[in-house]
Amino acid sequence: MEISSDLLGDLQAVLGPDGVILDPDVTSAYSRDMMPLAPSGRPLAVVMPVDTAQVSAVVRLCGAAGVPIVPRGAGSGLTGAANAVDGAITMVMTRMKAILEIDEGNRLAVVQPGVVNLDFRRAVEAKGLFYAPDPSSYDWCTIGGNLSTNAGGLCCVKYGVTTDAVLGLEVVLASGEILRTGRRTVKGVAGYDLTKLFVGSEGTLCVITEATLALRPTPAAPVTLVAAFGSPEDAGEAVSGAIRAGLVPSLLEIMDATCIRAVEAKNGAKLLGDGETPAALLLGQSDSGGALGRLEMEHLERVCVDAGATFAYVTDDLAEGRMLLQARRDVLNSLELYGTWLTDDVSVPRTAIAALISACEKISAQVGLTIGVVGHAGDGNMHPTIVYDASDEAQTKAAELAFGLMLDAGRALGGTVTGEHGVGRIKQDFLATEIGEIGIDVHRRIKNALDPGGLFNPGSMFAMQ
Amino acid sequence: MEISSDLLGDLQAVLGPDGVILDPDVTSAYSRDMMPLAPSGRPLAVVMPVDTAQVSAVVRLCGAAGVPIVPRGAGSGLTGAANAVDGAITMVMTRMKAILEIDEGNRLAVVQPGVVNLDFRRAVEAKGLFYAPDPSSYDWCTIGGNLSTNAGGLCCVKYGVTTDAVLGLEVVLASGEILRTGRRTVKGVAGYDLTKLFVGSEGTLCVITEATLALRPTPAAPVTLVAAFGSPEDAGEAVSGAIRAGLVPSLLEIMDATCIRAVEAKNGAKLLGDGETPAALLLGQSDSGGALGRLEMEHLERVCVDAGATFAYVTDDLAEGRMLLQARRDVLNSLELYGTWLTDDVSVPRTAIAALISACEKISAQVGLTIGVVGHAGDGNMHPTIVYDASDEAQTKAAELAFGLMLDAGRALGGTVTGEHGVGRIKQDFLATEIGEIGIDVHRRIKNALDPGGLFNPGSMFAMQ
Repeated sequence: MEISSDLLGDLQAVLGPDGVILDPDVTSAYSRDMMPLAPSGRPLAVVMPVDTAQVSAVVRLCGAAGVPIVPRGAGSGLTGAANAVDGAITMVMTRMKAILEIDEGNRLAVVQPGVVNLDFRRAVEAKGLFYAPDPSSYDWCTIGGNLSTNAGGLCCVKYGVTTDAVLGLEVVLASGEILRTGRRTVKGVAGYDLTKLFVGSEGTLCVITEATLALRPTPAAPVTLVAAFGSPEDAGEAVSGAIRAGLVPSLLEIMDATCIRAVEAKNGAKLLGDGETPAALLLGQSDSGGALGRLEMEHLERVCVDAGATFAYVTDDLAEGRMLLQARRDVLNSLELYGTWLTDDVSVPRTAIAALISACEKISAQVGLTIGVVGHAGDGNMHPTIVYDASDEAQTKAAELAFGLMLDAGRALGGTVTGEHGVGRIKQDFLATEIGEIGIDVHRRIKNALDPGGLFNPGSMFAMQ
Repeated sequence: MEISSDLLGDLQAVLGPDGVILDPDVTSAYSRDMMPLAPSGRPLAVVMPVDTAQVSAVVRLCGAAGVPIVPRGAGSGLTGAANAVDGAITMVMTRMKAILEIDEGNRLAVVQPGVVNLDFRRAVEAKGLFYAPDPSSYDWCTIGGNLSTNAGGLCCVKYGVTTDAVLGLEVVLASGEILRTGRRTVKGVAGYDLTKLFVGSEGTLCVITEATLALRPTPAAPVTLVAAFGSPEDAGEAVSGAIRAGLVPSLLEIMDATCIRAVEAKNGAKLLGDGETPAALLLGQSDSGGALGRLEMEHLERVCVDAGATFAYVTDDLAEGRMLLQARRDVLNSLELYGTWLTDDVSVPRTAIAALISACEKISAQVGLTIGVVGHAGDGNMHPTIVYDASDEAQTKAAELAFGLMLDAGRALGGTVTGEHGVGRIKQDFLATEIGEIGIDVHRRIKNALDPGGLFNPGSMFAMQ
């Protein structure tokens, strides 16, 4: 399929010669995100707007031509929501990357969508402030992508997901009109919460062109806990115990034996000295500061020991804490030693973490593939990760089966089929099962009300009929 | 206007004889909330469902008969959103008041909408847990009303508004269908955030029949600061200083001289001993616990002194802290000594608090009415309160004028026309000005998509054309 010369000419007139890319060697780089199993097409063209006026003009032109638009950021997504659609333009937002304002007196910032999460973090850190949402891909994902997927991260147990840090948006609607939602104040309840409707809508309702984000004071230096367990059940019991004890760590992560071994293999060194590799590790941090931070982690240490931890250790040494956390961050790269990784995203009630890990072990045996479980234990959002040979059709099919079985297991435990990655082009059926026909009907009604021509990201998240 | 005998018979068949009230002496008690200036009609009938099935049946019957429904809780609202509409049924949710579940292991609760905020707080406190949203009317407002208006309270500076504590809802749609939104997990991003769309929609999109609410650990015993200032500017500078210093108090309230004098007159005693009444007071609390709480409030004390406080005092005596806070809670009742109070709700960037107070002083002089300013300084959400003689037409007109001028002043300072009370039947024009024609159009599209017959709370929040 080729773009019509009329539309091409109009787009070039708006965006300039370097704002419209047709070379398939280049456009193919924008055809997929990081989810190997999601379907993708070929972009009719890739457009790279530099300001809101260009976005609006492109939306109007595509609307008039009946050519859909897939908006995307850096492409670090894990659901295929940013994947190209045959016959559609892909709109890449990475040139709109300005940090427009950092307001220390009101602890907020105004940014364009293309700014990389880490660049933004560093800019606000330089002013003594903190932007909480920290997806694993924070060194290359964009704020716009984080907004579209309502991304999470390690911070969520204490600070929530992206939507909890958003005060307002500027968006371009399917009509090409520009709408500002929300406010610059801490509180505001004027009208429907369009801001939180658009956050997490995965590019299906509008194109986000600007965001006003709430910042926090820089947290205190962390105190870190590591605890080893002889079974995932004991680690799960420690998590439940921490919740019952009223602890709110700034981070509480879990890794199972498969993940620990992978990291140890990559590092060529044991994580916790020369003993046996534990069945599960918990990593906790408190950023409450000073004596309180240490007290909280020592409390968590006692909870872990009571739950049967075989080893537990608290440190306020920053380098040691960073090293332990790095092991957690290295899990996916380490699993890559054994094959292609396919990471799932299932969120369960915190009392059901051990049950989910146990279900994943059974699924691993059933499909005959390695599954390492890593996740945000403190909020119940687990990322069981399947390792397989992507060149082997049977293994690919088995991986796909396991991916779905783990979501079913999560739902059966009272969970949801996505805690932070979203739905995109890989979980439409699971979303439909989770929210039911009435829920899907409400989604369609809202989509149809705001994008009657089906211009934005067609076929992602849910089907229109 | 009278209800048709067909619809009456059908409603009585669903709700039983005591579930449908026609006696005008009784139904008139359900015709208004606490906003004196908002228009109200007479309920065609008041219905009092006891379960979701009854709500659904009533919605279907009214939908078929073309009779609109105004859902309401206790009626503590401050915008007329719950006011009766001529020709419409009023649906009172207060009989659905069960606390269905408190899950300590997952820190959540499931409740019906009619439970009173304070009853719910006490029930979770008995389990060592904490429900943050605490509107001033917490001893009689219902959780359903809090959800519909996205209510705030004193807690917001640290813990946010109601939407920040909601995990999921059960609602009855205009079709009578029952939809569950959200989840029981801490995180979940499956589909559009319908939960947060429905919270704050003021009964215009659905009837909320159940809510799953996130709880927190019981906060530590508070440490309280009180500081007096010679001018509102100095108090405003202290608030800005606290934000710049990275402080996050669990509460930070402001009262101006008018409010302080009213409370002193009602109590028959000076708030801070026998000196001159200060121009402004700040009340702060930390619930961080122990030494950290005291450190935070001592830090805030230094910030206040640097900003020119004429008096500042930190106490961890609970009775003393409670007494100081009671003075803040007594403001509206105390202003009643001088006439009818009309409280406004305007949220400004925290750097603009002194400017807003100064604007209110000018408006007070302009309209010739007393205006006392009280508010949640920590988050910039101010409640300037007009005192007037409601039996005097000229004063009532002047009050109405002042009410609007203060909203205009707030918007001119970068604020919003409602921080926590909502829009209802009193701020439709201000909402339209704030969000503009495109914003109103998006509201109408969503309303029309979900409630095409205009069944729910017609005319509230915005007009359909």
